Amino acid sequence: MVIAVPGTSRVVIENVQPCVDCGRYPVKRTVGERVNVTADIFADGHDHVRAEVLYKKATDKTWSTAAMHQQGNDAWFGFFTVTEKAPYVFTVRAWVDHLETWYEGIKKKIAAQVNVRVELLEGSMLLLESPESKKKEVQKIAGWFKDEAKYAENLDLVIGDEFAELVKRNPIRKFETVYPDEITVAVEHVKARFSTWYELFPRSASLTGKHGTFADVLKLLPRIEAMGFDVLYLPPIHPIGKVNRKGKNNNVRSVKGEPGSPWAIGSDEGGHKAIHPELGTLDEYKELITKAKKRGIDVAMDLAFQCAPDHPYVKEHPQWFKQRPDGSIQYAENPPKKYQDIYPFNFECDDWQNLWNELLSVVLYWIDQGVTIFRVDNPHTKPFRFWQWLIGEVNKQHADIIFLSEAFTRPRVMAALAKLGFTQSYTYFTWRVSRNELVEYMNELVHGPSRNYFRPNFWPNTPDILPYHLQHQGDTAFIIRLVLAATLSSNYGIYGPPFEFCESNPIPGKEEYLDSEKFEIKQYDWKKTTRMTDIITIVNKARREHPALQTTWNIHFCASGNDNLLAYLKVTDDLADCMLVVVNFDQHGRQSGYIQLPKEVLRLSNGINIKLHDLVTNEHYTWTQEWNYVELDPHKLPFHLLHLTLHESYA
Amino acid sequence: MVIAVPGTSRVVIENVQPCVDCGRYPVKRTVGERVNVTADIFADGHDHVRAEVLYKKATDKTWSTAAMHQQGNDAWFGFFTVTEKAPYVFTVRAWVDHLETWYEGIKKKIAAQVNVRVELLEGSMLLLESPESKKKEVQKIAGWFKDEAKYAENLDLVIGDEFAELVKRNPIRKFETVYPDEITVAVEHVKARFSTWYELFPRSASLTGKHGTFADVLKLLPRIEAMGFDVLYLPPIHPIGKVNRKGKNNNVRSVKGEPGSPWAIGSDEGGHKAIHPELGTLDEYKELITKAKKRGIDVAMDLAFQCAPDHPYVKEHPQWFKQRPDGSIQYAENPPKKYQDIYPFNFECDDWQNLWNELLSVVLYWIDQGVTIFRVDNPHTKPFRFWQWLIGEVNKQHADIIFLSEAFTRPRVMAALAKLGFTQSYTYFTWRVSRNELVEYMNELVHGPSRNYFRPNFWPNTPDILPYHLQHQGDTAFIIRLVLAATLSSNYGIYGPPFEFCESNPIPGKEEYLDSEKFEIKQYDWKKTTRMTDIITIVNKARREHPALQTTWNIHFCASGNDNLLAYLKVTDDLADCMLVVVNFDQHGRQSGYIQLPKEVLRLSNGINIKLHDLVTNEHYTWTQEWNYVELDPHKLPFHLLHLTLHESYA
Repeated sequence: MVIAVPGTSRVVIENVQPCVDCGRYPVKRTVGERVNVTADIFADGHDHVRAEVLYKKATDKTWSTAAMHQQGNDAWFGFFTVTEKAPYVFTVRAWVDHLETWYEGIKKKIAAQVNVRVELLEGSMLLLESPESKKKEVQKIAGWFKDEAKYAENLDLVIGDEFAELVKRNPIRKFETVYPDEITVAVEHVKARFSTWYELFPRSASLTGKHGTFADVLKLLPRIEAMGFDVLYLPPIHPIGKVNRKGKNNNVRSVKGEPGSPWAIGSDEGGHKAIHPELGTLDEYKELITKAKKRGIDVAMDLAFQCAPDHPYVKEHPQWFKQRPDGSIQYAENPPKKYQDIYPFNFECDDWQNLWNELLSVVLYWIDQGVTIFRVDNPHTKPFRFWQWLIGEVNKQHADIIFLSEAFTRPRVMAALAKLGFTQSYTYFTWRVSRNELVEYMNELVHGPSRNYFRPNFWPNTPDILPYHLQHQGDTAFIIRLVLAATLSSNYGIYGPPFEFCESNPIPGKEEYLDSEKFEIKQYDWKKTTRMTDIITIVNKARREHPALQTTWNIHFCASGNDNLLAYLKVTDDLADCMLVVVNFDQHGRQSGYIQLPKEVLRLSNGINIKLHDLVTNEHYTWTQEWNYVELDPHKLPFHLLHLTLHESYA
Repeated sequence: MVIAVPGTSRVVIENVQPCVDCGRYPVKRTVGERVNVTADIFADGHDHVRAEVLYKKATDKTWSTAAMHQQGNDAWFGFFTVTEKAPYVFTVRAWVDHLETWYEGIKKKIAAQVNVRVELLEGSMLLLESPESKKKEVQKIAGWFKDEAKYAENLDLVIGDEFAELVKRNPIRKFETVYPDEITVAVEHVKARFSTWYELFPRSASLTGKHGTFADVLKLLPRIEAMGFDVLYLPPIHPIGKVNRKGKNNNVRSVKGEPGSPWAIGSDEGGHKAIHPELGTLDEYKELITKAKKRGIDVAMDLAFQCAPDHPYVKEHPQWFKQRPDGSIQYAENPPKKYQDIYPFNFECDDWQNLWNELLSVVLYWIDQGVTIFRVDNPHTKPFRFWQWLIGEVNKQHADIIFLSEAFTRPRVMAALAKLGFTQSYTYFTWRVSRNELVEYMNELVHGPSRNYFRPNFWPNTPDILPYHLQHQGDTAFIIRLVLAATLSSNYGIYGPPFEFCESNPIPGKEEYLDSEKFEIKQYDWKKTTRMTDIITIVNKARREHPALQTTWNIHFCASGNDNLLAYLKVTDDLADCMLVVVNFDQHGRQSGYIQLPKEVLRLSNGINIKLHDLVTNEHYTWTQEWNYVELDPHKLPFHLLHLTLHESYA
């Protein structure tokens, strides 16, 4: 009987992670990030196993290797760092190392004073099978092991440090097992991981109260840059439907002169490839993109795939919409609610291929105009396969395009959109308010399975959401939410003007802004700076200067003796940058207590000597204990943003 | 641009379970068991989704279906039952049902008193697209919906129960999504799930103190059958090595006449296909198998793939063993310990294919003699791929062969052996003693990932293990361990004679029997019955008569007001058989307290009326509350084995 499996491969490799849905989707990383690889690895019997990660860019021919180490109970760990914007692949290989098995065995026998003459002969043979068998030193030792006269010296040699080093670096590789799957890692540029968003309605960019224009937005760029934002996101800039246009506060009827919702896209002035005439021209939009980019700011476009009743598509491609038996077109609804200013596309229509291609052409058109970031409106109301296809097609033609998924919906739906290709995602942070809620949510994001594909983007507010906890509140509440968003998550954003100016008036009983800018033009005092704008500026500067704040995945919550105080440490892999954030959740009262430094994370021994520098107040502290006293008065400032310098004064 | 994906399929199906290692290994079930299928299923938007499990025998052409139901948060559930010993496959399909979407929408609009004339026209069209469109009743309703004169009646019809039923049974199936994987279920015979093992050394089967024989074992069959065992497992029955034979209590030197360890297999009298002459002949062994089978007992063979130094293989196939530089053969060792009566095979030898084929021929030889169950000795010291191949080859030629893995080792190693094909596995039960340890371990076995491939077989003792908690103990300790093994796990076994007779003398400081039967012949009073044998008899009878005790997967632990009392309920899916076990962990004192009936499991409303019958003491109780008083005096009996009859007297 012919035996097909390679019977001499004795090592089993299972459960290689990270891996998303059995490899159906890539693991996501950004340039410069580590890929921490774990696997269950074991062989029969007591022989010693060695394992390593194999990794390479998908197009490379040769593999690089990274040693893996056993963590106990057959769990192994190794890592590599991705350095280029390209798909990588990795897998794991392992084998029984007979030299190491022999070495550990003979050491135990020597310790038990067993005669090891035959074992030395075996060692001699193994050394001559090892990779370094050609080296003079190795051949010399192999010779000594055969020399009975050198028995005592040989024992000393075997238990010495140099020989240990030789065995460690010189494994005998035979009968390797390679994990059957190669796992793909999609490596994106750093902005996918670290970005700071500012949203404003260009209609309100004017200082005079008139309808704002791209030219007005241009004038705001220095302010936005000074506050430290690197993405400027504008709601849709296309012509706004005139039929069934909504009025102030979402009134189903508008009066003449009301601007309507920018998400009701399309009119006789054009559709998704056109620009709302009151904002300016295509050239002015392109000028805004170019000038913003010079300041390090990307202008993000809103992608809302839906039409006002007078969108040109409705006449030109009625087959893309759902026709009702009475000859009308189906408007958007969530029964019994109706949205009569919006026609959704019918993605199930017979002509779906042309519809999809047209929508792709919209994205490609704006990329050609210089857009690199899209904030996608309600992606969960369009088919998942459509997005997977569209993002895939875009990625084939263009590197570095970011898609932010605005799906405030059920967990698995949000996860699915991230898996299939959205670069970043809105999250439940908007409604996670208490200390425990935040810790639980961060642990889910950072340690749950979605960690490998779902990149959170934390927003304390949006034009649609003025959450209850920010309603009728003073600036302390806004400051707390700003600091949490900006330091828990490396991607965050604010719907800027009302946040900066701490606007907190809702429609009573709802989580919506009263007199929302979605339906009217607002006038802001764009020249004013406040305590809030100062704090935004300082926090964003700290984010730019401190790599520890440029990733979401490195958070360690600290034990705290006071439930009103949340403390978390963020450190780079090499501990070169260490930040500690402490937030007082009591807006109204001074809170104090002891918080614990996680000694393992900081690799601290008993002699602790840490200098702390508060980047907001400029105060300095020295900590020499594991537990340290903290006091925060919200009337002064409800948080510490501390940079840590570790001094090596260990006992 | 051609779009390859079927764009109109809108439903996403993820995470279909059960599934072992992304489908690399089959899910295991036995005939008559349910396969509970879960999946994450969702579509974009608010449309209604329907889903079903598709399942069939692998060789069948057509699929059967089982409806799935949403459990909340996009988690769906459905099940099917496997009824034949054959590989099955299953997958999941789902689709958006526009009839149901329409139905739920129009009901909400009717409730909100919205005019639904156009919706009725839509409903008419949808009914004529539905599977039952040809039915007269459906065509009649479709006609009415178009009749404005019937508007009011139509509303009544839509909100009525009959129409709800019509919508439910008549989904419109369009643009289905089918999960990309078909998952294999290996369906084995019932004994793989439900078996009761008794181990004895045939060397001690004689009543007279002489070396026992198969003929002596024959005489013990009535006793073993009366106690209710259905597997009789004998340690190796092959010739025992004479070279380096071990003496009493594992002495490295034996004196003349000592029988040696049966696991030191092979001598000049033959090897793995021969029979130890002192036990009898091949014909007598076959007679034992046949006569035992007539009593419902399978004789299990020990499969110990290792050789005594005088095994014929050593001379005939020296290449299958590891040669040392001094010309000797490597004996088994775990440095610095040596096992000089055993030579392990070298599975890495150049001639491994012939070695593997020879070992397979050993298994096939004994199957030809009538053996159907193998207890495999230390499988974790032979390569995993070897076992996967060997079990696969055996399964190709023979149905219903059971392999029990005797691997008392690390969790992932034990799991890997079960995954690759071992039917049942020894477990950590032997050392899980306290109430909390047992609850935790059972939850790991029943609710952890290994539930789909690792079938536990609980042994309170083995010839190698007299655990500390049974040393120097009276029969109460043995009774508790018996009842736990027999009712927590549907597969269990005892190393019979010393357990029956509550032998509890160890080698001091070790978990080993003093004067172990492994190295000498023992004499038992095979005519004696005791409190212990009576309890074994009653418990095993209950196991045979109560399907609720014939599976391990149905356990529900009950809350208990007294930490000394462990209570667990085991019920069949249809609640036709319900058993409640209560164990007092205090061997020395009476314990009492209240225990809680899990109302959801028993589908109890507020009116509880349950009759309980203790199958050991024959006492009867009636419980009418959720929490019920229990009292156990270990001097009488440390456990209740209660059969429950549920009376339907709900308020």
